[in-house]
Amino acid sequence: MSRFFLERYKDLKSYAPGEQPEDFSKFIKLNTNEMPYPPSQKVIKAIDDLQLLKLNLYPPVEFNNLKAKIAKFYDISRENIFLSNGSDEILSFIFLGFFRDGANVAFPDITYGFYNVYAQLYGSNADIIPLSSDFTINIKDYINIGKNIVIANPNAPTGICLSLSDVEKIVKGNQDNLVVIDEAYIDFGGESAVPLIKKYDNVLVVQTFSKSRSLAGARLGFAMGDRKLIDGLRKIKYSTNPYNVNRLTLTAGEASFDDDVYFNSCCKKISETREYLTKELENIGFLVLNSKANFIFAKPFNITANNLYLKLKEKGILIRYFEQERINDFVRISIGTKEDTDILLKEIRGII
Amino acid sequence: MSRFFLERYKDLKSYAPGEQPEDFSKFIKLNTNEMPYPPSQKVIKAIDDLQLLKLNLYPPVEFNNLKAKIAKFYDISRENIFLSNGSDEILSFIFLGFFRDGANVAFPDITYGFYNVYAQLYGSNADIIPLSSDFTINIKDYINIGKNIVIANPNAPTGICLSLSDVEKIVKGNQDNLVVIDEAYIDFGGESAVPLIKKYDNVLVVQTFSKSRSLAGARLGFAMGDRKLIDGLRKIKYSTNPYNVNRLTLTAGEASFDDDVYFNSCCKKISETREYLTKELENIGFLVLNSKANFIFAKPFNITANNLYLKLKEKGILIRYFEQERINDFVRISIGTKEDTDILLKEIRGII
Repeated sequence: MSRFFLERYKDLKSYAPGEQPEDFSKFIKLNTNEMPYPPSQKVIKAIDDLQLLKLNLYPPVEFNNLKAKIAKFYDISRENIFLSNGSDEILSFIFLGFFRDGANVAFPDITYGFYNVYAQLYGSNADIIPLSSDFTINIKDYINIGKNIVIANPNAPTGICLSLSDVEKIVKGNQDNLVVIDEAYIDFGGESAVPLIKKYDNVLVVQTFSKSRSLAGARLGFAMGDRKLIDGLRKIKYSTNPYNVNRLTLTAGEASFDDDVYFNSCCKKISETREYLTKELENIGFLVLNSKANFIFAKPFNITANNLYLKLKEKGILIRYFEQERINDFVRISIGTKEDTDILLKEIRGII
Repeated sequence: MSRFFLERYKDLKSYAPGEQPEDFSKFIKLNTNEMPYPPSQKVIKAIDDLQLLKLNLYPPVEFNNLKAKIAKFYDISRENIFLSNGSDEILSFIFLGFFRDGANVAFPDITYGFYNVYAQLYGSNADIIPLSSDFTINIKDYINIGKNIVIANPNAPTGICLSLSDVEKIVKGNQDNLVVIDEAYIDFGGESAVPLIKKYDNVLVVQTFSKSRSLAGARLGFAMGDRKLIDGLRKIKYSTNPYNVNRLTLTAGEASFDDDVYFNSCCKKISETREYLTKELENIGFLVLNSKANFIFAKPFNITANNLYLKLKEKGILIRYFEQERINDFVRISIGTKEDTDILLKEIRGII
């Protein structure tokens, strides 16, 4: 590392994204929870030459058109919405703006690995609370704990989802602290906490266009919460990167919200394929956690998780394996098309 | 502000971007230093349906194809290049990774306003060194000062450019500190410091696609420097937002580097129009600083700067006025097309 890079980051362990081969055409990619279906035809049509010819101009900075569409969808106000370059950017802004340098923040031991990276980077005082032995979140661990809280719901990589009433208990039970609900995977069967933002000023709901809206490649995330919380995020944006979302991504996001039919049909197909894959894997002896996400978390039968990952890679199928205590005998498999799923099942049956 | 937003940001003054009307078709926009010409036809053609249909997939994370093109253009290696969501993101990463919490960093009093915002946000110890009375940088103020340094070259909003040999004196004169040269406007007549990165490990050159490459709306910036410096920026990226540049922007960036002819012709037209506008304004009594950028900084004749800004806005022309000591009798005017420039001149003549 450069002699000019700050000493304080010596032990900082960055996030390791799933493999992204530059030539991914050789692989069935079931390792980064992308949607297997392309974006809506409305998105494809919206990005036309007229839009491209305007790329010499900066984007607008407040994204009011897109905010209006999201506001309508969720029956909230534009002022309750913040948009960003993927939802990771929002999480980074939250830790920088609300949890920096010694602020207390609690999250589960098994969850999205990035929370602990942000805590390290920005110097939060992280309280990492173990999941129960069945990988569920015990909500009693999060009631009245006097700390900020970050919960992924559904949780990753388990896929297990809390009910809205359980989420409300956590929000209500910590009114003097900020509760962040990361709903990257909520559209595949969970119930969103967005209605809570009208009742509580201490809850921030984070969502993304990367999964259910087939736009991982466009980088677009959004947060919803009390206007004052949103103003905090805006303050960070205007102090780091005011033009944080580009023109074409804004256009794509707007068109995506114009096509509820496609959105709903994609989410439905993923849920159905997830149930199908779960049943088939259970039939051959895998332990599969109860997922409401666009992936499943499964303990293979008759082969180690690491070996299954490696052997599937040889066959041209990428899944995700985490070398991490408690979960290193599991693999995470993103839900692909029905066809991809059948190829996956055939290969797994051949391997074990 | 939310009761959960950190107290430490109470006095943080964010950056105020130039006005970006959502319906800009009503205005001649000469206020945010955008290129008046659209991107290359190669960019328009490269973003085709095939690209759009892949938006469900995350972008690659290391951007090797685009880095290879930039490396070839500047005769450096891919490992010397870092790409980001606009060059503001790089500047933010530099302050976070290299200048945080008490680190010393020097920059001029009149320069890109964001440096001081980053210094406040990340807690740098900023040493703000006044420009000379003629708005030039006195390089003696920056030799052997035992501090990190950030210099915009050409400087903003003055447009005045240091020679490469002066930049080298600063880099050579501070080998135990990091020197950042922000070359957002270098392609309009200045000489880039990129060749220095092979001789010195303490210089980081920052550039952008927003100005000379007509891609402000796509958000794409890049830094060039010693591999270890680049690794520091990568560490921050992988600890905040690994997929920081979206698919379509990568495609646009690659296509832009495939069309040197268009790039050169746009830069040449801007330089010629800048010289024309400068001469015409001097003829009617304005004081115009010697600019090598795609804007000029001028003190109006027979009207205050603020009034000129307001009256031009009434006429549908946006220019930039800074309510800031030392420069509040100047306006910054971005270089538009020759036609826009003639309309601007006609309106100015009418007003004064």
